[in-house]
Amino acid sequence: MSEEVKLHGAWASPLSYRVIWALKLKGIAYEYVEEDLSNKSALLLHYNPIHKKIPVLVHTGKPICESMIIIEYIEEMWPHTPLLPTDPYDRAISRFWIKFVEDKALPILGRMFNTMGGELEKAIKESLEILEIVEEHGLEDNKYFNGETIGMVDIAFGSILYWLGVNEEVLGVKLLEPHKFPRLHEWFQSFQEVPVIKENLPDRDNVVAFFKRRRETLEATAA
Amino acid sequence: MSEEVKLHGAWASPLSYRVIWALKLKGIAYEYVEEDLSNKSALLLHYNPIHKKIPVLVHTGKPICESMIIIEYIEEMWPHTPLLPTDPYDRAISRFWIKFVEDKALPILGRMFNTMGGELEKAIKESLEILEIVEEHGLEDNKYFNGETIGMVDIAFGSILYWLGVNEEVLGVKLLEPHKFPRLHEWFQSFQEVPVIKENLPDRDNVVAFFKRRRETLEATAA
Repeated sequence: MSEEVKLHGAWASPLSYRVIWALKLKGIAYEYVEEDLSNKSALLLHYNPIHKKIPVLVHTGKPICESMIIIEYIEEMWPHTPLLPTDPYDRAISRFWIKFVEDKALPILGRMFNTMGGELEKAIKESLEILEIVEEHGLEDNKYFNGETIGMVDIAFGSILYWLGVNEEVLGVKLLEPHKFPRLHEWFQSFQEVPVIKENLPDRDNVVAFFKRRRETLEATAA
Repeated sequence: MSEEVKLHGAWASPLSYRVIWALKLKGIAYEYVEEDLSNKSALLLHYNPIHKKIPVLVHTGKPICESMIIIEYIEEMWPHTPLLPTDPYDRAISRFWIKFVEDKALPILGRMFNTMGGELEKAIKESLEILEIVEEHGLEDNKYFNGETIGMVDIAFGSILYWLGVNEEVLGVKLLEPHKFPRLHEWFQSFQEVPVIKENLPDRDNVVAFFKRRRETLEATAA
């Protein structure tokens, strides 16, 4: 069986970038396979028959699905440059925030991209409530969520905030305001300056243009 | 700091029982604190200020929230009698199913307890779709989800199925029919025969009576 690592992803997806960041932070060589989400490959459907979603990591021919589960697999398979703390209690706190991002922040980000009118206003309001909770409870006085080095919670939440910024531009609203969320704002600056993150982000203008077109289609279909 | 382990739970909650099963399977002594969910203790709100929910495990004075994160903490703190496989790929598969239960099965169970009419019918239909996916993809030819011994996926999904059975009785419907779900049905029989599970389940009649009263209140309030 080949030892090779393949990542099935999509260029405008925050979840793909999470896996790319983890692989790059650990220096794992991989082959990237771009999926057309409007016409998914037979291989993707074979690898992820239940959710039929990217990202999927294929290692030695075996598929792993769900972005944060892929990253935990990467962490266990290649333990150097750890992305989780070693202490069980600190690991539980990291996992708490990852679950918070997955259960609360990610669905709201999806609703911001896919709703209009009152539903959109509700999603925007809820996104601010999420930011308030993380501002108040998440970072304390640490540089990153796990402490002094970038880790799994930063990857999970960083992807949300980058695409939240895309949403701000598409919708013409400002959400992550520095005076309202000083800790989060500072953290997100540091996060984006980490070389692996900075060098592995999709072109901002392209992503904004992509989601602007999606919104135009959404509005045209609803009209 | 005291080494003691305390569990804040509620007697009719599937999520409390998950943690009880993990602690008992590993033989960890603990003190149980019953929470009145209609009048939560100041201590619970202090320990879980974000979600304000049970279960919360308190170990050496420090709180851990979210049932499956608590169990992963227990696994890492007391590694004997492992509840996850050792191979990273097998661990990823276990985590996939745990996430599936949390994201798909648990919300539907909640909706079955808390909805009426068309919403309830929809939840029942979706619960059958979930059972079909797990029947087809989850167990393969294993006795338990992780293989030959009970593990974390069994705990996660077993709690859902026990309370699904409660729902069947409250609503007068049959969902886990042996001829439709032969593997799941057999697995659930084995699961309930594990001594730690069998000896640590709430009294079935009491739980059914509790959720019958809740449904009566729900219907009376809506009328």
